[in-house]
Amino acid sequence: MRSNKRTGTALDEIDHVAIEVKDIAETVSWYTDRFQCEVVYRDNTWAMLEFGNIRLAFVSSGQHPPHLGFVREDAEEFGTLETHRDGTRSTYIADPSGNAIELLAKED
Amino acid sequence: MRSNKRTGTALDEIDHVAIEVKDIAETVSWYTDRFQCEVVYRDNTWAMLEFGNIRLAFVSSGQHPPHLGFVREDAEEFGTLETHRDGTRSTYIADPSGNAIELLAKED
Repeated sequence: MRSNKRTGTALDEIDHVAIEVKDIAETVSWYTDRFQCEVVYRDNTWAMLEFGNIRLAFVSSGQHPPHLGFVREDAEEFGTLETHRDGTRSTYIADPSGNAIELLAKED
Repeated sequence: MRSNKRTGTALDEIDHVAIEVKDIAETVSWYTDRFQCEVVYRDNTWAMLEFGNIRLAFVSSGQHPPHLGFVREDAEEFGTLETHRDGTRSTYIADPSGNAIELLAKED
């Protein structure tokens, strides 16, 4: 785990990146044909691929927003956590340009 | 390094993610105030932050496209490599939805 060179504090990791795509199945095929990665979830509204250092999600317009996802022990300090169907709990905030950032609670 | 469970092949890593922002300096302050990360480059058109597992770039509209960047030994098989001011060599392709993907040559 990389640390801040000055303070020695561990750097935060980005858990996943979600980008917007038009066709989930076509996109999964395109990436898995060209890159070494594994499909960890897929339905007709979104999918998740695992790469060596991070997960890449594909989301459909109007279903889930494109975003960066961080796992943080203090996620609830960023907003009220919502529990999702898969049991994860998170909240979304926006950066100054309106890019969505998901803060996920660290699960035990 | 994570590997494909079925084939044992090492999974590709995403070198960096670049997202579009309105104001580089404001965005760098916003992220460094909330996340443990280090500023590795910044000028008034783009910036790069280092997180524990990946680098996050901020790009300005019309300057650099938002993209995902991969380092690959076979980068030139994706297109003619262009040499950038910092000495890196890369080419861009688009996924089926038009999302830009940068393939960077592995430097010795």
